Amino acid sequence: MKAEIVSVGSEILRGKIVDTNANFIAQKLAELSIDLSYISAVGDNQKMLLSLLKKALSRSDLIITTGGLGPTEDDITYPVIAETLHLKLIKSPEAEKNLKRILHSIKIKLSPSNLKQAYLPEGAKVIINKYGTAPAMILEKDNKIISSFPGVPYEMKKLIEENLLPYLKEKFPPSVIKKSKTLKITGLGESSVNELIRNYINEQTNFSFGIYANPEDIQIQITTQAPTEKEVDQLLQFSSNQLTKILGSYVYGNDQQSLEEVVGNLLKEKNIKVAVAESCTGGMLGEIITNIPGSSEYFQGGVISYNAKIKEELLKVPQEIIKKYGEVSAQVARLMAEGVRKCCYSDIGISITGISGPGGATEKKQVGLVYMALANGKKILVQKHQLFGNRQQIRLRASRRALNLLRMYLIKK
Amino acid sequence: MKAEIVSVGSEILRGKIVDTNANFIAQKLAELSIDLSYISAVGDNQKMLLSLLKKALSRSDLIITTGGLGPTEDDITYPVIAETLHLKLIKSPEAEKNLKRILHSIKIKLSPSNLKQAYLPEGAKVIINKYGTAPAMILEKDNKIISSFPGVPYEMKKLIEENLLPYLKEKFPPSVIKKSKTLKITGLGESSVNELIRNYINEQTNFSFGIYANPEDIQIQITTQAPTEKEVDQLLQFSSNQLTKILGSYVYGNDQQSLEEVVGNLLKEKNIKVAVAESCTGGMLGEIITNIPGSSEYFQGGVISYNAKIKEELLKVPQEIIKKYGEVSAQVARLMAEGVRKCCYSDIGISITGISGPGGATEKKQVGLVYMALANGKKILVQKHQLFGNRQQIRLRASRRALNLLRMYLIKK
Repeated sequence: MKAEIVSVGSEILRGKIVDTNANFIAQKLAELSIDLSYISAVGDNQKMLLSLLKKALSRSDLIITTGGLGPTEDDITYPVIAETLHLKLIKSPEAEKNLKRILHSIKIKLSPSNLKQAYLPEGAKVIINKYGTAPAMILEKDNKIISSFPGVPYEMKKLIEENLLPYLKEKFPPSVIKKSKTLKITGLGESSVNELIRNYINEQTNFSFGIYANPEDIQIQITTQAPTEKEVDQLLQFSSNQLTKILGSYVYGNDQQSLEEVVGNLLKEKNIKVAVAESCTGGMLGEIITNIPGSSEYFQGGVISYNAKIKEELLKVPQEIIKKYGEVSAQVARLMAEGVRKCCYSDIGISITGISGPGGATEKKQVGLVYMALANGKKILVQKHQLFGNRQQIRLRASRRALNLLRMYLIKK
Repeated sequence: MKAEIVSVGSEILRGKIVDTNANFIAQKLAELSIDLSYISAVGDNQKMLLSLLKKALSRSDLIITTGGLGPTEDDITYPVIAETLHLKLIKSPEAEKNLKRILHSIKIKLSPSNLKQAYLPEGAKVIINKYGTAPAMILEKDNKIISSFPGVPYEMKKLIEENLLPYLKEKFPPSVIKKSKTLKITGLGESSVNELIRNYINEQTNFSFGIYANPEDIQIQITTQAPTEKEVDQLLQFSSNQLTKILGSYVYGNDQQSLEEVVGNLLKEKNIKVAVAESCTGGMLGEIITNIPGSSEYFQGGVISYNAKIKEELLKVPQEIIKKYGEVSAQVARLMAEGVRKCCYSDIGISITGISGPGGATEKKQVGLVYMALANGKKILVQKHQLFGNRQQIRLRASRRALNLLRMYLIKK
C-alpha cells in the first residue's frame, strides 16, 4: 500500500507557514509501517488541486489531505474531492448540528458561508470535530481511501489520533510493530558517545540506532520491530539496559524525562534543599529548576550576582579574592557556592561564573570559560569547562552542566 | 512563470525531519513575486523522483530541488535530473577542486564515492559550495530552469542567497517590489489591538495587514508593493508611523528588535541600573535581561526569593506582612522591589510574585495571579495581572509584563 499527503493552503506556498502537519502525519504513518511516497503542498486553487488529486489517485492507495475546510470561498477541498471522484456534496446533519453548537457557544449566528462547512462528498464517513467547526472525513471509493482533516494543527492532530489511526490499524493491521526508545545523555561529547558505543552498535542486527547532538544533551534513539507490542517493548528495554551499562551515569533519563525533572526527583527523594548563585547565566539555572511544578519543595532560591559588589555583599566573597583571581575563577566559584548555601538557608549551594561573550574575554580567559561549584557545608566540588557556541548556547550549556554536577553528586550520595 | 519546489530525502517522508528548506525558498520566491504552484517531497527513490521531475517539467517553468547531493548511493538527484533531461553526467573540475580542498582541510582522503559529488548534468552552470562538499547548479534547457541545492539548511540558504536569487532577479526583473515591516506590541490583548486599528486598516487600499498573537507579544505585519525599493520603504514607514500614532507606547519596537534590547537601550541611554527580585519566575526575568551582550552595564543582579525565608532575610520583607497578606500580594511585591533595589545597590528594583501553577491556588488567589512592582527609592509602582496559560506561559508572560512595566517607566521618565 502506498500513501501520500496533500497539504492545501496558499499560505504554505507563499512561505507564511511551515507545513508541520505533514511531518506529524508522516511520523504516524511510519509508526504503522505504512509507506509514504509523496508529500505535496498546493494553494487554494481549484484547477491545481484537481490535477494533483487525480495524479495522487493514480499512484497511491491512501491520500490524506489537510487544510481547505474553512467557511470562506477559498476553502475548496471538499468540492474538489467531490469533483475528482464524480460525487455530489451532501449536507451532513451531524456536522450541521456540531457547527450550530460551536457557533452558539461563541455567540455567532449561523450564516450561509458557515453552513458550507457541513457539506461533504457523498458516501464519506463524517468525523465530527469537537474542537472546531470543520468536520473531517474518511471516504472509500474504488479501492482508494481519501481522508481529510482541517489545517489547524491542534484539531488535525486530535482528529487523526482519535479517528484515522484506529481506522488504519484495524484496516491494515501491521505485520510488525515498530517502536523507538530514546536514551538521554549529558556530560559527554558526541564523539565520545560514538566511540564508547560503536562496537555495541555494530554488533546489533535487530536494532537500528540514531545519535542526535543537541545544545542541551545527546540522545540515542533505539528502534526495533517485533510481531507484538510486548516483544518490542522488551527488546527496547534490553538494548536500553545494555547501552546504559556502557555509558553508566552519563545517561540521565529517557524519552520524555528532562534533566531538571530527574534532578528534582532526586532532591525530593533525598530530602535535600538547593540554592543557586548565578553570574553569567543571569538566572537561567533557577529558571530551569523552577520549570518543574512543586519545585518549591526543594528549591530555596538564590542570588543573581551579575555585579561583583553583589558577590561581595550578599555572597560574602572577599573583595581581595575577586581582585586576586578575577570574577571568573575557581576560587570565586567555590566561595559563591558556599555563600549562597548559607544566605539562602540551604543544604547545597550551586554556583556558576563564566564568560558567555561575545565580549569579556582576556588573553588567559576565553569566551566560553565557565567555573561552577557545589558546596554542601563540608566540602566544595569545583569544575572548569571551556564551552562552545554563541552567548545563549554557552549560558544554556553552563546551566545544564551545573544541573548535571548536582545530579552526579546526588546519585553518588 | 510558474515555479515549483522538489525536496528529496527519505527522512522527510519518514517524519524524521520537517522540511523547513521549502518554506525558506517559498519566502524568497514570494519576495520576488514569482508564483509557486507546488511543493513536493519525495524519498531517495530513483523511479519516484524521475516521475515527479517529469510531471514538474510538464507543469512548471522553474524547478528548485534540495537534497540528494551527498556522497552515498542514496544520493541520486543529479543522476535522475540527467536521466529526466537525457543528459550525460560530466565531472566539474572546479567542483572536484573544492571537494579536495574541503576533504584536505578535515584530513580525509578523497574516495571514489566522494568524487561522485563532482559529477553534474551536462550544461549545468556549476555553483561552487564553499560551505560543504556538494556543488549546487543552475541548468537551463528547452525554456525550463532546474536549479539544485544541498539539503543542509545552512548551505542551501547561503548558496540560494548568493547565487539563485541574483540570477532570478536579473533574469526575471520583478515589475514591483513587495516588502513587509513588523510592529511589535506589548501590554495590550489581541482583541484590543484589533479594535483600535480596525478603522485604519479598513480604510487602507495600498497595504495588507496581518495580526499575529504570540505568547510574548502581538505583531502587526504591514505589507505593500511599489515599483522601487525606496518607494516601498517609504510607504511602509508611513503606515508604520500611522499605526504607532494610534497604538502609542504599546508599540515597543519593530522587525528584529526584542523587548529586552529596547529596555536595555533605554537603561543605557538614561544611565540607570536595575536589579530583580523574582519569586514565581525563578530567575527568568534576570535571564531575559542578560540575554543582551553588555547587559552588565545596567543590570546589577538580583535575588530569587522562591522561599519566604529569603524574602525576609535578603529582601527584608517583614514576616508579619507576609503572614498578613500572603506571599502573593501587592504589599509583598512592593517590599520585594524596594528590598532588592537596596541590597543590590541599584537605582531601580523590579519584583515579581505570583502563582504559576498548576498547584498553589487558593479560593481567592487563582493560578495566573501575579503582582509586580517597580521601586526607584522615591515611589513604588505596583501592577496586578491575572495571566493565562500553562506554568511556563504564565512565567514568560509575567517576565514580559515586568519588562514592559520597566519600559513604560523609562519612556515617561
